[in-house]
Parts: sequence; C-alpha cells; structure tokens
Amino acid sequence: MSARAGIIVTGTEVLTGRVSDLNGPWLAEQLRQAGVDVGFTIVVGDRPQDLADALDFLAGTHVDLIVTSGGLGPTADDLTAAVVGDWQSRPSVPDPELEKRIAEIVERLSARRSWPVDPEAMAAGTAKQARVPAGAEVLEPTGTAPGLVVPGSSGDAHPPVVVLPGPPGELQGMWPDAMASPLVNEALADRAELRQSTLRLWGTPEAAIAATLRRLDDDLDGLEITTCLREGELEVVTRYGVELAERYDRLEHAVVEEYGSAVFSTDASTVDDIVAHLLESRGLTIATSESCTAGLLAGRLTERAGSSAWVRGGAVVYSNEAKHDLVGVPTEVIERHGAVSEEVAVALAQGARRELRADIGVGITGIAGPGGGTAEKPVGLVHLCVAGPDGVISRAPVLGGGRSGVRARSVAVALHLVRELLQGG
Amino acid sequence: MSARAGIIVTGTEVLTGRVSDLNGPWLAEQLRQAGVDVGFTIVVGDRPQDLADALDFLAGTHVDLIVTSGGLGPTADDLTAAVVGDWQSRPSVPDPELEKRIAEIVERLSARRSWPVDPEAMAAGTAKQARVPAGAEVLEPTGTAPGLVVPGSSGDAHPPVVVLPGPPGELQGMWPDAMASPLVNEALADRAELRQSTLRLWGTPEAAIAATLRRLDDDLDGLEITTCLREGELEVVTRYGVELAERYDRLEHAVVEEYGSAVFSTDASTVDDIVAHLLESRGLTIATSESCTAGLLAGRLTERAGSSAWVRGGAVVYSNEAKHDLVGVPTEVIERHGAVSEEVAVALAQGARRELRADIGVGITGIAGPGGGTAEKPVGLVHLCVAGPDGVISRAPVLGGGRSGVRARSVAVALHLVRELLQGG
Repeated sequence: MSARAGIIVTGTEVLTGRVSDLNGPWLAEQLRQAGVDVGFTIVVGDRPQDLADALDFLAGTHVDLIVTSGGLGPTADDLTAAVVGDWQSRPSVPDPELEKRIAEIVERLSARRSWPVDPEAMAAGTAKQARVPAGAEVLEPTGTAPGLVVPGSSGDAHPPVVVLPGPPGELQGMWPDAMASPLVNEALADRAELRQSTLRLWGTPEAAIAATLRRLDDDLDGLEITTCLREGELEVVTRYGVELAERYDRLEHAVVEEYGSAVFSTDASTVDDIVAHLLESRGLTIATSESCTAGLLAGRLTERAGSSAWVRGGAVVYSNEAKHDLVGVPTEVIERHGAVSEEVAVALAQGARRELRADIGVGITGIAGPGGGTAEKPVGLVHLCVAGPDGVISRAPVLGGGRSGVRARSVAVALHLVRELLQGG
Repeated sequence: MSARAGIIVTGTEVLTGRVSDLNGPWLAEQLRQAGVDVGFTIVVGDRPQDLADALDFLAGTHVDLIVTSGGLGPTADDLTAAVVGDWQSRPSVPDPELEKRIAEIVERLSARRSWPVDPEAMAAGTAKQARVPAGAEVLEPTGTAPGLVVPGSSGDAHPPVVVLPGPPGELQGMWPDAMASPLVNEALADRAELRQSTLRLWGTPEAAIAATLRRLDDDLDGLEITTCLREGELEVVTRYGVELAERYDRLEHAVVEEYGSAVFSTDASTVDDIVAHLLESRGLTIATSESCTAGLLAGRLTERAGSSAWVRGGAVVYSNEAKHDLVGVPTEVIERHGAVSEEVAVALAQGARRELRADIGVGITGIAGPGGGTAEKPVGLVHLCVAGPDGVISRAPVLGGGRSGVRARSVAVALHLVRELLQGG
C-alpha cells in the first residue's frame, strides 16, 4: 500500500475558470514521481467553510498528506493559512521574525516599482502573511508569501497539511523545501516506487486501442491503463508497480506489433521533443508560413530553450497580400486555386524555406471558421505542406473542434508531418 | 438561498495533468450564468471508488445538482455512467434503440477515416456506450457518447446527476439539452439572480487594491470580492445579489476614482476585446514582428473570428537574418545596439507596418531565457515598440516567470501598448 495524498487548489478565480489551474496537475506529477498516489484534486473558492469541507473530505479518504495551493496573499480573501490552522486546532499567531523577513522582501520589490504604495497598507498585508499556526513549520518565501507545513493535532485523524502559495513559480520554487520537511517525510514513509510509461500513437482511433486492450485483458492485471485522444494523438499511459515491469513490456510489445509506425513514441517523448531532436541532431533549420494558425506553430516550435539553433523564423500571412509580400506566393496561384488550396500551401512552404533560408519549410492555410466555409471547402479544411531538401509532404484534413480546435489541431498535424518528413528521409 | 451545484471532472489524464481541464471552468461559468452557485470542482482519476467518494462528498454538502464530465467513451477505463448508476441505485441496462443510433454515428465517422476497424471491437464499444441506468434521461450524443440525467433514488439524499462526455466540444454541444431537462429544472428551482462584475487594472500591484478594499470594508458587506494578478493585469471580480447593485456601484466608483486610467475595463471586456474593437471600429489594420514571442502575439490577435478584417499578418524573426530579410531591420542597427534593443524594437515595428502595409506595427525583441542574459541585459528584458500613424510607444520592462512567463507577459504588455496608442490618439 503506497502513500496517498490529496490536493486542494483554492481560489474563486480558479474555480470559475478565470485562471486555469497549473498547480494541481504540477503537484500531482511531482507527488507521482515521489512515489505518492494522488486520488483527488479539489478546486474550492475563497470561502472558509468550503475549504474546511474539502479538508474533511480528504481526511476521510485516509490520505497521508494534504497539499494546498493559493490563498496566502496579502488580501482579505487569502485565508488558507488561517483556515488550515483552525482545522488542525492550531490557531495562528504572529511570527515577528518572519514578518521582518517578508517586509524586507516587499521593500525590495517595491523599490523596483513605480507605484506609490501606502506603507501602512503594506504593513497590514505583511503582518497578515506572517501569521503562523502554532507548531507549524515555515517554508521560506520564494515570492512574498511563506509556505507552511501544519501538523495534524493528536486526537483528530488529520494528516499534515502542506500550505503553498498560488503563483506557480513561487509554489514550484518552494516544493523542494516542502519535500525536505521532516513532517512530510514521516507522513510519506510508505511511498512505493510506482512507474509510469507512455505510448503515443498518431492517427489511431481510440476504439481500436480499446479493442486491443480488451483482447489483452488477461495479461493486464495490476496495470492501471488510461487512454486519451487529443488533437489526433492517442496517448496510452500505464502506471504499475516495479514488480509488473515485464507485464508492461509485453503490453508495449503487443501495441507496437499491432500498430507499427503509428506508435511514434514509447518513452513519453512528445512530437515536439522528437521534432526538436531530429532538427538539432541533423543540424537542420526550419521556417514557417502560417495563415489560419497565424504564428501558433512558430510559437510552439520556440517554446523550447535553445530553439533558436534550428528555428529561423516564420511568416504570419493572414491576408493574401502578406502571402505574396512576405513569402512570395504568386498572386495568380491564389486567384486560380483560392487561398486555401494545396498549391498555396506548397508555395507557402517553399516560400518559407527560400525567404527565411531554412532547410525545412512549413505552409499552413485553412478555414478555421466559424465563417468562410463552402460546400467544397468546409470549415475545418486545412491544407498543410512540409517541404525539405529531399521531399515534400502535403495533406488536407478536415479538422473539428471549432475555431480554436481547428487551429490547435492544424499545429499538431504540421508537427507530425515534419516528423514524418525527417524520419522518412 | 440560491441553488447549488458541484462538478466532478473524471479522467486520470486530467488528474495527472496530461490534459488540462477545460470542462470544470466552463461548467462553473455556465452554472453561474444560470444563477447556480458552484462550491467545488473535484478532479478524480478513472477509479470507481474515488468517483463514488466524490459523489458522496458533494451529496453531503447538500448540493442540488451534480454535473460530471468524462468517462463515457468506449474503453474499459470509461466508467462514469455505470458508477453513477450504481450510486443512484439504478443499475445500467442496455438501450437497444440508443445502441442503434450510436452505431449509425460510429459508422458515419468510420467512413471518413482510413483506419481499418475491427467491427466486433466497435460493436463492443457501442454496446458499452448504450447502457443506461434505469430511469435515467438520455441526452442525445453530439459525438458518439450519449449524456445522461440520472435521478436520485428515494431514500438516499442524493441529488440528480448530469453525466456529460469529456471532449469539450461534445460537452458544450450537449449542455443546452441538459439544462432543458425537467429533472434539472426541478433540482435548480431555487436559482437566484447572482450578478458578477469585473474591473481590470493594468500595472497596479495587488497590495494596493488590498489596501483600498480594507479602507472600504464597512461598505462591502455581502459583496464576494476576489482579486487576481495575472500577466501584469489585476482583475477584481465581485459577485453579489441584485439587491446589492448600488453597493457594488459605490465600490466601482471608488476604485475608478483612486486608480484613474489604470482601470482599463469596468464591463469585463478584456484587453483583447478592447484592442479588437478599437481597430475594427476605426478601420485600422495591424501587423507584428516578433522575436522572443515568435508568433504568440499574432496567434492571440487572430483568436477572434473575423480578425482577418484588421490583422494583416506578421513576421516571426527569431534569427537576425530573418529580422533583416522579412522586415528590413538594418544589419548595422542589430550589430551596433544588439538584437535586444530599443532601436531594433522600433525597426521591427516600423518594418511590420511597411512590409505588411498595416496602420499599426508592433515589434517585440527580448531575452526569454533561461540562457542568453547578461548583467546589462538580463533574462526577462524585453524591448517592445508600437508604431502607428500618429505616434510611437516604446517600453523595456524586465519580466519574470521563466521562459514561458516572459513570453506570455510580453504579449500582454504589447496588447496594452496597442491599447494605449489607440486610446491616446
């Protein structure tokens, strides 16, 4: 039986979707890597009773540790530390030394800002942030808010609670200290090595893999398998104890056997990883000409640090004039075949190669919608072309998912075409 | 007392962060607009007991309705319908008519695909998807999976559960039918009109607004206020019953009084909305030259349907050659001042205007990191310039948040500079 944890993400702005939650998934992954099983992530608004209810629920599922994020700021709606303290029967008291350290940080930050700050207001915020539940460990601030490890109180069957700030950078910076806490280590003493392996397939329907898994069912005992279809990629993630490694290997072998080159990754690498590695290792460069995706492919290719070594740049050619002016698509090709056509996609790819002096050029032109579709060229039709020194690949899928879905999936298709061109050549 | 609902998002891929949850926030917002208060969104993996525990917890908080997303697919890990049925003491039974309708949909979809599908496997998946808890209403599939409204059973104090599919497009397509269900309407009979108003400020520290709210505290009773700082924007969202509208008006007045033009939105419009409206209503066009953001600004400007009316296009100028070749930044300017400099940002903005024949040009060049920083030009330094017919604005903030943070915040700063140029002119 491995150690278990629950996560509580606080913040009305997260609950109502104004901010998307980066902390729950990040914490779940960190805990998984540390051999801790996570059963629940609960998102609650900035309401004390709701937070206390969520703590009660997780304690009732017998988790060994609870981790919270958010609600440690200077404003009155930031109430996590006080609620967790009360829940552990450990009322909060001022920590004057901590208050001094926070005040110094706030002062340093204010000096970099032009905003005139009322010193009394700042002091009130700092004093609030320096209140610590009795007996809690303080995790030193990585922003202005300190984190906490608040022990359970004898009597209640409450696990310790790690209280972390909401800004992802602060939370992530504080995590190593949290995991080094003696209280946390004691709580997670039972952690077991749990492996996670990932297969990624391109173009395979989820129903097909479902059939494969049904066929193999007798040999899957103890493997926790989840499949997920996303932007045309099918991801098969399996979690298992180390003792089942051979069983997992048989599963992987069976899937690779059945689906062949549709399995593009068996080591959890993404198509982004693979494309970056192929370009970098061969010393090739890439450039893009994007119409309907309007820079999203270039933005994704450059997410990676160091990508300037292989990304030359790109053209966002939303208007027909831009297609001509930036990457030299002949006006008559656009007039004859339409802006959304194989001919224009090829000219965009070749134009990107030529004008940006790159080895590989990618052209994307499509109808993202919601308007602009016709019977012949419906919304979702996207012409893509990848051109390299040794060949050209063109595709024209009809993609679904609304405007943003069509754009995101076009980027995914383009990355896979680049991968296919590089792996085939 | 208004109607309350709880949301359960299922899927190990969501719990572990491999897929980010779009459904929880979307459902919370829909319910809010319908006058329903949401206290919790719980993310659970594909484990029957965890899902049942989450249902128990929400029932214990006396919600009037539970909405689930995910777990309705053809694979064995898709178990939501069966678990909810069991929880409501309504065992699932095959619905032959529904099975036929799903089979027709699957056949139509298969015909569009090149993948050879084992008919027996498809039939097994379809049969699984057509099992319906006794007495449940069926919501017709928008993809292949039907949704359900599963009534509580007399005896348990269980609210009805609306069971929706995981793909956001399918879920959203099915929502109107769910809200039209007689069972749902009965459960939410107590819904009250709850207003939500949003103020957005640019460049104001959270501590400042915290001080303002503390000062106004006596007149804030009954207003549920949350503040959130994101990419340099401070968002103040207030929820309140209609009877407190005047109290909210006083709050808004006080904030606008104190912060002046830093308050760029009082009607929940975003900077994207404002920029799009300003460009469209004045018949102006825009073009971009992006180095460190590499297309993300162009991608964001074109998120909106119809944006081709004002977005001409852009250049992604990751390499110095691209800066010269695509938008004519003189090589000697780059050599003299460095690629990250005010001079290059201005040349990028002017080059975008000129080469893409646009009214407004935006230039962005910066050091996104993690490498490439120096004492003089640290990681996070970004030079931005917005040039229009009547003027030019340049800025050079040092932004935090790591590589992706610097890139995202650069886009936000650029949008605000465009807004300032257009509003000032």
